[in-house]
Amino acid sequence: MNYPSRLIEDAVSEISRLPGIGKKTALRLALHLLKREEQQTRSLSDALLNMRTKTTYCVKCHNIADERLCNICGSSKRDHSIICVVVDTRDVLAIESTNQYKGLYHVLGGIISPLEGIGPSDLQIDSLLARIENPTEQETVQEIILALSPTMEGDTTAFYLQKKLKSTGVKMSTIARGVPIGGDLEYADEITLGRSIVSRVAYD
Amino acid sequence: MNYPSRLIEDAVSEISRLPGIGKKTALRLALHLLKREEQQTRSLSDALLNMRTKTTYCVKCHNIADERLCNICGSSKRDHSIICVVVDTRDVLAIESTNQYKGLYHVLGGIISPLEGIGPSDLQIDSLLARIENPTEQETVQEIILALSPTMEGDTTAFYLQKKLKSTGVKMSTIARGVPIGGDLEYADEITLGRSIVSRVAYD
Repeated sequence: MNYPSRLIEDAVSEISRLPGIGKKTALRLALHLLKREEQQTRSLSDALLNMRTKTTYCVKCHNIADERLCNICGSSKRDHSIICVVVDTRDVLAIESTNQYKGLYHVLGGIISPLEGIGPSDLQIDSLLARIENPTEQETVQEIILALSPTMEGDTTAFYLQKKLKSTGVKMSTIARGVPIGGDLEYADEITLGRSIVSRVAYD
Repeated sequence: MNYPSRLIEDAVSEISRLPGIGKKTALRLALHLLKREEQQTRSLSDALLNMRTKTTYCVKCHNIADERLCNICGSSKRDHSIICVVVDTRDVLAIESTNQYKGLYHVLGGIISPLEGIGPSDLQIDSLLARIENPTEQETVQEIILALSPTMEGDTTAFYLQKKLKSTGVKMSTIARGVPIGGDLEYADEITLGRSIVSRVAYD
């Protein structure tokens, strides 16, 4: 396409490097910004750069943080004896939005995937082991919950972690898998439905 | 949602002000940028700000431009006797991508819409009149093509322009409306199909 301006072309090319945004959407966004106050583009541009250059990772759980410790690890209101192991920050946000979990997290930063060349050493597994093996006054881990996706990679990672953490004697569990709440049995896939029968829960 | 970092929250809030991007997509884009090289965010941030602060509008056709004249008005390869009237830059790009038009453009900057409070005085209509009435050595307008959307607002604007430009005696036309090429008659809506029968074209 022949852009009317080299500056637009540059902006479109940069915007369309974002995932899920093609040239047409990028152009629409660029023209939108051009129509708005200059201040909006300035705020957007500053917010992106600030985020990228100033956010760090929590030294404990490797979640995104503004300071040395993230606001979950730094909070005295959380239960410092349970750690929920997740793949990335998005999973932390998803679990936080349920309001059902009050423990801490540990962000692995990825998942074991031989196809993509990601092995255990690329993940934050050693630091998880260290958190369990070296209890501090603030944190004495008693339970580990694995909250990994029920995929081949997720199961491989869970299996590896179970083996690796077995020697510590810490209690381990995984999030329940089954028919989604509100979901119709008829539309559940066979594997999920099969698993939900095998892992049936007895009434108290 | 409880964002793990105020900087992420700021970025998500700024990104989600863009049209068609919600909080979830904004978060996905922010986390994507965090995973990539810092340089990518820097380029994106710079490109947006450069675009917003440095692009101007062509003094003649009001299209987006890097300099005083856009690269269409400034080109000696274009036919300077025809002007195609469009609503915004996106329309210019759409027509340019057909490779079927070699004349100039005039970007109105909007469309007459009483509901949104946009009247003729908000559009670049006087400057279009001036281009027709004051021919220069480079530009002597002989034909005006109206390329407006076949909507209520488009038709209103076209009607207004026809009345306004009548006194200049310039030849006026509108882009053809009819069944889209490759479209199945069966699936064409009644109004388009009806219009395509009324405006039927005789074989030569």
